[in-house]
Amino acid sequence: MTAPRMLTGDRPTGRLHLGHYVGSIANRVRLHQRYDSFFIVADLHMLTTKNTREDIQQVADNAREMVTDVLAAGVDPARATFYLQSAIPEVGDLNTLLQNLVTVPRLERVPSLKDMARDSGKEEMPYGLLGYPVLQAADILCVKGQVVPVGKDNAAHVEVTREIARRFNGLYGTVFPVPELIQADTPSLVGTDGAAKMSKSRGNTILLSDDAAAVRRKVMGMYTDPNRVRADVPGTVEGNPVFAYHDVFNPDLAQVAELKERYRAGRVGDVEVKEKLADALNNFLDPIRERRARIEDDRGLVDQLIFEGTERTRREVRQTVSEVRRAMGLTSAYTRMRRRAERAGRALAANG
Amino acid sequence: MTAPRMLTGDRPTGRLHLGHYVGSIANRVRLHQRYDSFFIVADLHMLTTKNTREDIQQVADNAREMVTDVLAAGVDPARATFYLQSAIPEVGDLNTLLQNLVTVPRLERVPSLKDMARDSGKEEMPYGLLGYPVLQAADILCVKGQVVPVGKDNAAHVEVTREIARRFNGLYGTVFPVPELIQADTPSLVGTDGAAKMSKSRGNTILLSDDAAAVRRKVMGMYTDPNRVRADVPGTVEGNPVFAYHDVFNPDLAQVAELKERYRAGRVGDVEVKEKLADALNNFLDPIRERRARIEDDRGLVDQLIFEGTERTRREVRQTVSEVRRAMGLTSAYTRMRRRAERAGRALAANG
Repeated sequence: MTAPRMLTGDRPTGRLHLGHYVGSIANRVRLHQRYDSFFIVADLHMLTTKNTREDIQQVADNAREMVTDVLAAGVDPARATFYLQSAIPEVGDLNTLLQNLVTVPRLERVPSLKDMARDSGKEEMPYGLLGYPVLQAADILCVKGQVVPVGKDNAAHVEVTREIARRFNGLYGTVFPVPELIQADTPSLVGTDGAAKMSKSRGNTILLSDDAAAVRRKVMGMYTDPNRVRADVPGTVEGNPVFAYHDVFNPDLAQVAELKERYRAGRVGDVEVKEKLADALNNFLDPIRERRARIEDDRGLVDQLIFEGTERTRREVRQTVSEVRRAMGLTSAYTRMRRRAERAGRALAANG
Repeated sequence: MTAPRMLTGDRPTGRLHLGHYVGSIANRVRLHQRYDSFFIVADLHMLTTKNTREDIQQVADNAREMVTDVLAAGVDPARATFYLQSAIPEVGDLNTLLQNLVTVPRLERVPSLKDMARDSGKEEMPYGLLGYPVLQAADILCVKGQVVPVGKDNAAHVEVTREIARRFNGLYGTVFPVPELIQADTPSLVGTDGAAKMSKSRGNTILLSDDAAAVRRKVMGMYTDPNRVRADVPGTVEGNPVFAYHDVFNPDLAQVAELKERYRAGRVGDVEVKEKLADALNNFLDPIRERRARIEDDRGLVDQLIFEGTERTRREVRQTVSEVRRAMGLTSAYTRMRRRAERAGRALAANG
């Protein structure tokens, strides 16, 4: 394969929702065909904020659901390598070797980390969480990733990867490509409660895997303009989540424009607006559901994809880490000892 | 082997001097027979402050010199396992897994790290250096070390290991012994310049491998009481490095007492005091030199010891890390995928 390598992926949080789709999946579906694409299931990253046995027990199921959704959304398994980060211990080795190439103050300037600590209820920043961008550098560099699609949060992380790659190459000779950021337009989608970004922990999501009835029910319960107590009261479209979803998911622009006009004028009921939204969402989700159903019928497919992808990735990572150790001179430190002992005619009991 | 396990060791800085002997080696010589003793050559720790290719190129030679000195000082190779840290990549994996069990503020409270950053000329703390105690925890825990001899600097480091071990065991079930600190009486020895602790970078050392003439020359050039311009001027014994060495290395207590008395009274020349010190030091070093000569004659011995020790340690570490991954549930996450795929009748291309 000569296509440039792309790395992308997520922590294994389970089934994906429309917020994930809008924020990153749509972009990956569009991009992945152009690249040799690695999709990481970043469970070691999950450990930086969630590390009980119960959290870890959910990794396998969550990974399967997540990968199923990504495939259902349109990623071609023939063009993507899915892998489970924790199943590649060499990533931890590389992470340890890269940790001296970046400073604490540099990492403290990465804006998202403090938010992540706070959001996960940690009073004090775990050491591993401060090193989140270093582990991410290990992920990207261990497969010699050349492009990384980023939203506004993780652009700062990937900048750290670029610095580490340059610093490594400068110290030890060029091993790593300095990955390019593909700045994606990653709008965040408000939740059905209209109060915050769509997120599992807030229970304000619509899942890619929700059936038509569930979507309809969730849409009918959505937050709208609270001042609009009757259909003939003029309503506000701006900041209204129902119209935010229409704008993103309803391809019938004329219908959306007409609904907005009647809403502002107090000439349409919430029920009609929501029913049309439910129709639009279900139309949007139908092909995703169909692909999901086919994938689920193909028993073991997703597990096989992750397993074989992990094995492929592990071979790549081993190759990279071996280059890293050679470039740094660590390999020769050890082999020099071995050779000196052998030259002295010693039989070495080496069955490590 | 049923003896408890001890972990001890140093970064590979090369030949050892009397300061090392007094500060830690003497203690290890005394202790190691009671334990299944692992001696780490901590080159990954070296990387936290010295990580150029030139630094790394010196690891093999420095490791050999250091281990030769430790053996010459009296450590029995039949009771000690020497190993090169960087040759065991599983240590990096374990380091990555332990990083979430300690917080940044906790590590910032470890007193020695800021000194290490400053001493190594770093303007900003490298992320890996802040994690020095975590990597040390990985070293101790990867061989399930039960006792660790500590001086005043690294007692705080090993406290972090104890906390990490307890936290791990609490979260995932008991895998690690919580290592005991053996508080060693570790006096630091002033250098021959009388100005600072004996250290290679100050060039104020007497090496365990110095020959008798070199020791005599260094002793004759030692700093003494600067006010004492002639032998009949009364001198000060306190803080005088020549007498500090007499106190540590001259077993003839009567002679030392008599020299001090005459020195205070202005009845002895510096030359006599120094010649007696040179004699005492050479008497002390003679058996070390003899052992060193025998070890050097035994070509390849030290390289073999490090190589085979590393292989033995690697087997132990693999075993431990595999227990760690099982306890955390990481192994089952991956094997569950594999099994699900196999149960679905899929042939897995697994040659990773």
